Amino acid sequence: MKQPLHNRTDTGGRGETGSGRLYIVGTGPGDRNYLAPLATRALQHCTDVVGYGLYLDLLGDLIDGKTHHRLPLGKEVQRARLALELARAGKVCSLVSSGDAGIYAMATVVFQLLDENPDEGWGSIDIEVVPGISAVQLAAARSGAPLAHDFCTVSLSDLLTPWTVIEQRLHCAGQGDFVVALYNPVSVKRSQHLAVARDILLEYRSAGTPVVIARNLGRETEDVRTVELGAVDPDNVDMLTLVVVGNSETRCSGGWVYTPRGYRGAGV
Amino acid sequence: MKQPLHNRTDTGGRGETGSGRLYIVGTGPGDRNYLAPLATRALQHCTDVVGYGLYLDLLGDLIDGKTHHRLPLGKEVQRARLALELARAGKVCSLVSSGDAGIYAMATVVFQLLDENPDEGWGSIDIEVVPGISAVQLAAARSGAPLAHDFCTVSLSDLLTPWTVIEQRLHCAGQGDFVVALYNPVSVKRSQHLAVARDILLEYRSAGTPVVIARNLGRETEDVRTVELGAVDPDNVDMLTLVVVGNSETRCSGGWVYTPRGYRGAGV
Repeated sequence: MKQPLHNRTDTGGRGETGSGRLYIVGTGPGDRNYLAPLATRALQHCTDVVGYGLYLDLLGDLIDGKTHHRLPLGKEVQRARLALELARAGKVCSLVSSGDAGIYAMATVVFQLLDENPDEGWGSIDIEVVPGISAVQLAAARSGAPLAHDFCTVSLSDLLTPWTVIEQRLHCAGQGDFVVALYNPVSVKRSQHLAVARDILLEYRSAGTPVVIARNLGRETEDVRTVELGAVDPDNVDMLTLVVVGNSETRCSGGWVYTPRGYRGAGV
Repeated sequence: MKQPLHNRTDTGGRGETGSGRLYIVGTGPGDRNYLAPLATRALQHCTDVVGYGLYLDLLGDLIDGKTHHRLPLGKEVQRARLALELARAGKVCSLVSSGDAGIYAMATVVFQLLDENPDEGWGSIDIEVVPGISAVQLAAARSGAPLAHDFCTVSLSDLLTPWTVIEQRLHCAGQGDFVVALYNPVSVKRSQHLAVARDILLEYRSAGTPVVIARNLGRETEDVRTVELGAVDPDNVDMLTLVVVGNSETRCSGGWVYTPRGYRGAGV
């Protein structure tokens, strides 16, 4: 097995055996301030870059001189398949994923394809996942420390998960007093999902619970604001928004939102 | 209000008004491959660095020439207070936190101190939280894509959270079929917490559920292995270990662990 990038001292050329290599690279929120050096090295090291066009654009001159493969949103399986095909053909390929490649992103698509297609000859490809800063982490940093302690993430997209499962998760998140980060809070086809999520969480926590609404994180048009759970209005939230709902202990003070490490009375 | 670091073009000197500045910096797993450029810039920009000694050691020459303030584990409140005091005195201070400063880390300690001590004169300090790669993200990257979709984090430390609350959270995590990342799985005083957590989750998912056991992440002695939930043995887990328990859909194949984006039958 070839040495993974994080242990490599060389940064050029292809894998030692002539077979290809695949980096699944989390590029964070799009702002290069958050791009890990290992991600930069993977992008410099590769011959081919596969990704959604907007994410490739955000990488700018970092991927100059590489062969670009741009596939639209919704074509995640095709992107993963193409990246595997390129690596099998001997290329060093970076499959670009915004945020963390391992959280609501491309890494799992690759591993599922590998698992379900044992005869494709992809088994000899060296694969390395490079983590990145996920949207929920930047939303937290900008607003204070709303996650801080135990939290969960729930995607409100029912494209691949039955809505009944999502509702059950929201009930469990409420009952367990988890801070809840809501990914994919709305879309054109499902504008009311966020309202349902809000109402489920209101069964377990007060209407005054702080909620962080973070839009366009890491871009020039970034907008982060705090509202109360009872006042969450789906009409003010779009597909580029992440919503973080505090738990019973989350407080808002001096413009910052934070969840204490312990429960009241346990001291800081 | 002063411009935050992520919008600044200068990288030297103190805040424009002469009052201090505090960066709460997530330094990731300790391996500089994962240290965000913004974190590097904060460390270069500051005059004083406050942190646990080991974490400062890992930063090496990055913080040469800065005034170091080393405080032991367990002195989190004292570290946060010292950082605030230094910033109030006009210093540019980096409060160093391993992993993500906003996840089981220092940021919330600072905001709680600010909230509970309005008369300390800390209100005029410019504060910026710099996120980092958390242990759970590197554990995921090394093992495949076990998080991938909806997941939660639960700390098994009952120092500040009643054990009954932690047990309730574990039941909710099990019932909601969340992938579960267990932070602080054991300590000298509480060696059986992981066994209890395992047994609670076994009420909701099968004994064959894949579990990632990741130790010393990002260090030379890193060790990541996969076991079945029924075989999780607390004696093989220490304080430097992170445990990720898959959900009902998590699979293990070809040495990789992944959780599909959707539920069986929904396709990749």
